[in-house]
Amino acid sequence: MLSHFHIEFYFYNRGMTLFINSDRFKEDFDQLAQIGSTGDGGVNRTALSAAHLEARAWFSAKAAYAGLHPQTDSAGNVSAILQSPIPNLQSLLLGSHTDSVPNGGRFDGALGVVAALEVLRTIKESGVQLKVNLEAIDFTDEEGTLVGLLGSSALVDGITQESLSNPRGGRSKLEEGLARAHLTESGILNAKRDSKSIAGYLELHIEQGPRLTQSAIAIGVVSGIVGITSYRMKYIGAANHAGTTPMETRSDAGLGASAFTLTAREMVMRDFPNCVVNVGQMSFKPGAFNIIPVVAEFALEFRSPESKQLKQLEASLLGLAEVIARQFRLTLEYEHAGGCIPAPMSQRAQAAITAAADSLALTHTSLHSGAGHDAQSLAPITDAGMIFIPSRDGISHSPLEHSEWDDCLNGANVLLRAALRMGEG
Amino acid sequence: MLSHFHIEFYFYNRGMTLFINSDRFKEDFDQLAQIGSTGDGGVNRTALSAAHLEARAWFSAKAAYAGLHPQTDSAGNVSAILQSPIPNLQSLLLGSHTDSVPNGGRFDGALGVVAALEVLRTIKESGVQLKVNLEAIDFTDEEGTLVGLLGSSALVDGITQESLSNPRGGRSKLEEGLARAHLTESGILNAKRDSKSIAGYLELHIEQGPRLTQSAIAIGVVSGIVGITSYRMKYIGAANHAGTTPMETRSDAGLGASAFTLTAREMVMRDFPNCVVNVGQMSFKPGAFNIIPVVAEFALEFRSPESKQLKQLEASLLGLAEVIARQFRLTLEYEHAGGCIPAPMSQRAQAAITAAADSLALTHTSLHSGAGHDAQSLAPITDAGMIFIPSRDGISHSPLEHSEWDDCLNGANVLLRAALRMGEG
Repeated sequence: MLSHFHIEFYFYNRGMTLFINSDRFKEDFDQLAQIGSTGDGGVNRTALSAAHLEARAWFSAKAAYAGLHPQTDSAGNVSAILQSPIPNLQSLLLGSHTDSVPNGGRFDGALGVVAALEVLRTIKESGVQLKVNLEAIDFTDEEGTLVGLLGSSALVDGITQESLSNPRGGRSKLEEGLARAHLTESGILNAKRDSKSIAGYLELHIEQGPRLTQSAIAIGVVSGIVGITSYRMKYIGAANHAGTTPMETRSDAGLGASAFTLTAREMVMRDFPNCVVNVGQMSFKPGAFNIIPVVAEFALEFRSPESKQLKQLEASLLGLAEVIARQFRLTLEYEHAGGCIPAPMSQRAQAAITAAADSLALTHTSLHSGAGHDAQSLAPITDAGMIFIPSRDGISHSPLEHSEWDDCLNGANVLLRAALRMGEG
Repeated sequence: MLSHFHIEFYFYNRGMTLFINSDRFKEDFDQLAQIGSTGDGGVNRTALSAAHLEARAWFSAKAAYAGLHPQTDSAGNVSAILQSPIPNLQSLLLGSHTDSVPNGGRFDGALGVVAALEVLRTIKESGVQLKVNLEAIDFTDEEGTLVGLLGSSALVDGITQESLSNPRGGRSKLEEGLARAHLTESGILNAKRDSKSIAGYLELHIEQGPRLTQSAIAIGVVSGIVGITSYRMKYIGAANHAGTTPMETRSDAGLGASAFTLTAREMVMRDFPNCVVNVGQMSFKPGAFNIIPVVAEFALEFRSPESKQLKQLEASLLGLAEVIARQFRLTLEYEHAGGCIPAPMSQRAQAAITAAADSLALTHTSLHSGAGHDAQSLAPITDAGMIFIPSRDGISHSPLEHSEWDDCLNGANVLLRAALRMGEG
């Protein structure tokens, strides 16, 4: 009993005094930001583009140089592995993604991958021995210029033939990317790992929202990732002459779409304060100055961190759309356009992140992620957790995306200490 | 003095006992509806299409057969002329157009042309001698599939080189049409008539709105044709992530466009009850499910029968757009996109139409036209008047467009008697 206690105590104290190498971390981050740089502070590294593959080759080379075993799986996920000296079959994954949206920022994804690499190097150099293998992983196509969460979904057996046949970025783009990366569809469909081999997953990411910045809090402990539901909506009225048809007798589809856009926002702000709704696309037919719109089509998307609430929100929004249809003498049609269920983060991972932030005397708060992340793929099969750091003005997916370097450092050190806690098993 | 009184009395009484030949009128109307028939009750006779030219050839042949002098001017306007035996230089024009919108109805335009032809035949057969020549005229391209009010504008010198260089229907369509009809641009630009040669203009037309039908009134005495103002409007906000950006802090251009569409309607119905407004086109950029719209562009058109009110309406709508921009933290941009000024109908023409309806014991009401007509081209240079008859359900520009034949007959007899009054000079 005593020796067991001694070992745990040893791990705990060594872990709590470790810090990542801030200069090396910064140098690596800056090097990666040069690959696919758009010259305005941003990067253009869409999934499996030449720039993205160059970033992944850079990552593998860095891993090999640090004595970490580089590995690429059949879904293209690139890893650096620090094997535990204690024989075991489980790996704690630390990761994110190096792909970007077109003309995106240099923090989204890249920060989490470089931090994971640095955490492995720091632990390797420290001599701390964990009970699990550590794996820094760069997941394929998180951003969805091809499929979305492609690599992390493939790892947990979440990719279907259908999603590859009709990818959101278009079939030819997917085919070109796979050929460029020497990947195959069957490889992607067979990239599943045994879930028992995964000890947990931790991801450092920028918040992409303004909550941490506005409240001047250093660390966000992510409680869960929102579920998303999308619909293609359509109001149908009557095309009529915009000069001779009295205002009172019109069946103007554009009025229905406008009323829905406004009142959906009001309803969500009033009744679903932790949810969001967006009408991101709108078009009227026939689309002439002098013809009352007969058809108004729009794209509806809404998000909630809780499954039950997401269903309630869906029912409320579709009910609202029906009420508005009657109010404006319109016919309503809609078509489900995909989505995903909310992914709660594990209590164990949240506790590890909270303790890590406390050990560094960093302010922290619990919040949910309004954006999708690879962590949501992992959450159903393992203890998954996310660490957020402040985003300037909440801006992301833009060259203007920025996080203070001190915040990035804090985030990487929280990742390090949370990984040590999780790895102590 | 006595002989002068006698002549006037003679004209008056003969005129008041005349009726058009209802069978011949119906037969001609049905014949014309077969030319370019779409088989569903409608016609497809866009300006200077093969079907439209066939309709015009039919009209000229009918005129010649009736002993009326057929004539085509250099803007393609086709006329049938009943020369006055009393030497004079003035013509009273009765007309409308045989062109249609794509897949339009068989009443819009055609009714007025066939009625004008029938009025000339009736007067010729009656032996009534007027002090002016009578001219039944089919104006070119009223509907604007090429330029809009092309023939009637050309007649009053209202066509510019610019409107031919950038026609609303596209340049190649105009070139093809002109070639098909053996017309030239210089011919159109030189089709102006001496305004002193025109004694007045009368046009019979379907209402294209529901007011006469709803109030069960036989004849509309048009007080004026609305002026139209169009704007291309644009709200600019900030593109942002639709998941991570709190609802309260968004600058969503789509909300501005939606709020404008709704409140512009409410404002017009409340403060400008005789005006109309339409948002006929709308699009959001970048146009993705998960991105808050940074730009919302929409097409705004509004109409008023009075010049001063049209200006007030313009100021109110642009002011409203500014208020909404501030409310939703958006930038507003707009660009004038053309229009036309209101065209009041002449008191003399309205009096002639009213008296004609009274002489036939037909119910009538004064109303303005919410749609454009060739009469608005003529109004600035001569006494112009329009007669409306009921449109079923107010529908036009559709194969469903329909007017009861009794209403058509009534309209043609009012045209006949109003022309006699105007032609008595």
